Amino acid sequence: MSLSRGLFLAVEGIDGSGKSGIVGHLADHLRAHGRDVLTTREPGGTPEGEAIRALVLSGADDAWDPMSELLLMTAARVQHVRRVIAPALGSGRAVVSDRYVGSTLAYQGTGRGLSEDFIRDLHARAVGGLWPDLTLILDLDAATGLARSRRRLTDGAVDEGRFESLDLDFHERIRQSFLAQAARDPDRHAVIDASGTPEDVRSRAVAALDRLLT
Amino acid sequence: MSLSRGLFLAVEGIDGSGKSGIVGHLADHLRAHGRDVLTTREPGGTPEGEAIRALVLSGADDAWDPMSELLLMTAARVQHVRRVIAPALGSGRAVVSDRYVGSTLAYQGTGRGLSEDFIRDLHARAVGGLWPDLTLILDLDAATGLARSRRRLTDGAVDEGRFESLDLDFHERIRQSFLAQAARDPDRHAVIDASGTPEDVRSRAVAALDRLLT
Repeated sequence: MSLSRGLFLAVEGIDGSGKSGIVGHLADHLRAHGRDVLTTREPGGTPEGEAIRALVLSGADDAWDPMSELLLMTAARVQHVRRVIAPALGSGRAVVSDRYVGSTLAYQGTGRGLSEDFIRDLHARAVGGLWPDLTLILDLDAATGLARSRRRLTDGAVDEGRFESLDLDFHERIRQSFLAQAARDPDRHAVIDASGTPEDVRSRAVAALDRLLT
Repeated sequence: MSLSRGLFLAVEGIDGSGKSGIVGHLADHLRAHGRDVLTTREPGGTPEGEAIRALVLSGADDAWDPMSELLLMTAARVQHVRRVIAPALGSGRAVVSDRYVGSTLAYQGTGRGLSEDFIRDLHARAVGGLWPDLTLILDLDAATGLARSRRRLTDGAVDEGRFESLDLDFHERIRQSFLAQAARDPDRHAVIDASGTPEDVRSRAVAALDRLLT
């Protein structure tokens, strides 16, 4: 926690792994224990970052070169860290972010083929290498995650036959990237089984947080 | 010219130094000598780059952290190089760009205090270090440049008394950055005296180009 007097948590995982619900639940848990909590998300978290998010997400699939995408995501993170996260940590707050640099390593690294070493170097250079005190990886098999996220998008009317193997392969590679990040730095990561009921997953996430705090 | 079969020219200089006019004149000169020429500009040059340009230029002066600005400019350049400049050079065309990485070194480096070494490293990493065959630096004292660009903005009704010393100091630092870039790599730069009539400056620029081509 050398870079912060506060507490910095990130929640990562594939689409459909339940990140936003866990972010809210961790924040509630921390508030119940007297912490002042800021919840936020990436890409975004600042007006400039949200504008970059819109730019990246609105384009066609092939609009952005992978390297451009990495630089845009990192620019949004610079704004987020320097203007929101670091000041909050500096005043002793807890920050819980829905995605952070782990998603960049997974999506632009493993997913789009950029060097993970370069992404780490850029992170160090751009934001002084601010890493979360704990990153919770919500781990879920890709088929279940895709089914959950499509059910959300289509409001229940999902046709599982439409799943393409390309999507499944891609999400499985993203999942493996998150697991590899946790294995590389186990002290700052907790892998949470994200299968089962929302209550089950919340209990596991809170247990991991409590292990950090005690 | 190792990275291109074509010819890549960039035109750099402070505001008011007459870059866009020179870009057009160099293109005309090359076409008169049988070259197929593409003129372009930075930041921009692609739909995605123009969107980044709008994002950066529309914000308040302090909207963007200097590091974010560097990453955005570099993202726009990745799109520009990989989708426009490199393909054009690869098919033997001449490309003349109004601003390129020299402006990033000047404005985000000297102007906003980022490390020039880092900017060069990032350029190498992001676009394989594609440098122009020749960068023409339109060199003009800052007061004249500011007077010209304000006259353009106000359509003739300029009040020179409104010049602020802050602006002058800033533009003079940008000018010195361009001169330092030329001194560091004289084989790939030509410093063009941009004072005097447009015809004078055009003649000097064409002479520099002809020295490259002969």
